[in-house]
Amino acid sequence: MKKVRFGIIGTGGIAEKFAVSAAYVPEAEMVGAASRSLEKAQQFAQKFVIPKAYGSYEALLRDDEIDAVYIATPHSHHKENCLAAIAHGKHILCEKPLVLTKANAEQVFAAAAEKGLFIMEAMWTRFIPTFVKAKEWVNAGRIGDIRLIQASLGFHAPEDPNSRLLSKDLAGGALYDLGVYLFELTQEFTRGKRLAEVQSFSIPAATGVDGSDSIVFRHEDGTIAQLFCSLLCDVENTAILYGEKGYIKLLPDFHHPRRAELYQNYRLVETFEPEYHLGYEFEIRHAARCIAEGRLISDIIPPGDTIECEAMFEDLLFRWGYT
Amino acid sequence: MKKVRFGIIGTGGIAEKFAVSAAYVPEAEMVGAASRSLEKAQQFAQKFVIPKAYGSYEALLRDDEIDAVYIATPHSHHKENCLAAIAHGKHILCEKPLVLTKANAEQVFAAAAEKGLFIMEAMWTRFIPTFVKAKEWVNAGRIGDIRLIQASLGFHAPEDPNSRLLSKDLAGGALYDLGVYLFELTQEFTRGKRLAEVQSFSIPAATGVDGSDSIVFRHEDGTIAQLFCSLLCDVENTAILYGEKGYIKLLPDFHHPRRAELYQNYRLVETFEPEYHLGYEFEIRHAARCIAEGRLISDIIPPGDTIECEAMFEDLLFRWGYT
Repeated sequence: MKKVRFGIIGTGGIAEKFAVSAAYVPEAEMVGAASRSLEKAQQFAQKFVIPKAYGSYEALLRDDEIDAVYIATPHSHHKENCLAAIAHGKHILCEKPLVLTKANAEQVFAAAAEKGLFIMEAMWTRFIPTFVKAKEWVNAGRIGDIRLIQASLGFHAPEDPNSRLLSKDLAGGALYDLGVYLFELTQEFTRGKRLAEVQSFSIPAATGVDGSDSIVFRHEDGTIAQLFCSLLCDVENTAILYGEKGYIKLLPDFHHPRRAELYQNYRLVETFEPEYHLGYEFEIRHAARCIAEGRLISDIIPPGDTIECEAMFEDLLFRWGYT
Repeated sequence: MKKVRFGIIGTGGIAEKFAVSAAYVPEAEMVGAASRSLEKAQQFAQKFVIPKAYGSYEALLRDDEIDAVYIATPHSHHKENCLAAIAHGKHILCEKPLVLTKANAEQVFAAAAEKGLFIMEAMWTRFIPTFVKAKEWVNAGRIGDIRLIQASLGFHAPEDPNSRLLSKDLAGGALYDLGVYLFELTQEFTRGKRLAEVQSFSIPAATGVDGSDSIVFRHEDGTIAQLFCSLLCDVENTAILYGEKGYIKLLPDFHHPRRAELYQNYRLVETFEPEYHLGYEFEIRHAARCIAEGRLISDIIPPGDTIECEAMFEDLLFRWGYT
């Protein structure tokens, strides 16, 4: 199989993790890195042994030796970056959340489909072996039908008004950065169940973005999800899937769980704690394989999930008065 | 100090635990046990080495050698039992929930006060050393101001429509039996904060009582409590108090916690795991001391807390359509 040649757009912390992780993926090759500053791109490329550096995203997108881009810019720029990549015929792996509204998600997916390009939101959790094991346990009926999901993700973000996390201009806030994991976890483990009700509220941070969010889902069959995310408070970052016959814990931190535990009758009956690198390698491999096989979408992170998640963002942030 | 002479009204499971626990309390003396059946009362008295047995609650209440009663009947009977005890001049320790509505709670407290009698809801959790330790840690500022409380209490109750837990006639349901712990925990650790909003829903059990309840409190200062109770689903029964500077876990089960853990910067910095008997001995000792000292109410379970809790029951069950 020919290696998929990746270029990175954006050179922040998540881009660094991607570049390091890509080395663990035989199906992917890191070819270039682009920043709005050539100097930053060159520093990044040198640090991670990437052959090419570009002083603009456009320059990277014009390079015919690049098949696919990994978009690692702030959320607020994803839509524009995706559309530019599509215009230049590049396949896309884009950091979550893909975009910020349902309409934008639909627009971006349609544009990629029209050009015959692969596009996937980089929801890395779903590819991590511990998460995959939890799905296996659930599918094998080890905990029976799921009745309750409890998941929390939060930390006390540094009170720097210029930080992306707390910046309104850069689409900061707990929901975009952390809530996305709560939603996509719930999506995965309530598949086929119809949502009946959402109860929620948000506590604003001093910068005007959502600081702490409480979101509770009730499904028509009685399945409940109690979710919490926060940039104002350190929490344990554990997810528990409670079923009729037992429960599964994904811990810490559940969005890249190192350990999965299966309990029956309140007793730990199985633990799964695989060795792996940072955890990004699994999504990169999946995206590279999809692209190599000529697939346009992922079966693990299908567009429907991403669109539903963006719709939830839009609805909640509007209800909470942030938009 | 003279021993306070207790009589037990009701001879079910909780009465057994009380009788066993009273032996650990030097300030209390078990004098009598009453059931609606003399035979059951005699069996109970014999089993727990209690001198007197009565075939009616009335007979026990008429006995001048009894100072105080412990009411261990189903919730649906507490009001009537309390008022009868007050009419006979007995001090009262009554299983939680004391009664089922705010008005009834006010009535019972007023009646006891008028007769100069002690009355307290038996919220045993608040006297257990691990819980007391958590309060000490909070009061000493070890976790800073509390921002989030997460607590869940649930188990899959046997699907016996005649069981008290699932019986509508006997005031069954998750809220009365388990929710009471969620509320009184939250009360204790949000003291002085004003409640701004309650979001909740309930999933009914097959018998028509509330089976699983999700309740989320938002306080005016932004403090959140995410609570869950259920008779349909086994859950981990842990409570976590998250503060600005750390968190405390009360575990399993948090309503009679064997272990309290204090975390700072995600590291376990202190554990408290005292030896104790069943855990009822602490509330019995407190009640006996209050009575011996001529106090009419407890400072640990003040009437205001009980009344507030009953008001919450009443409001939620009405909102959920059970009443």
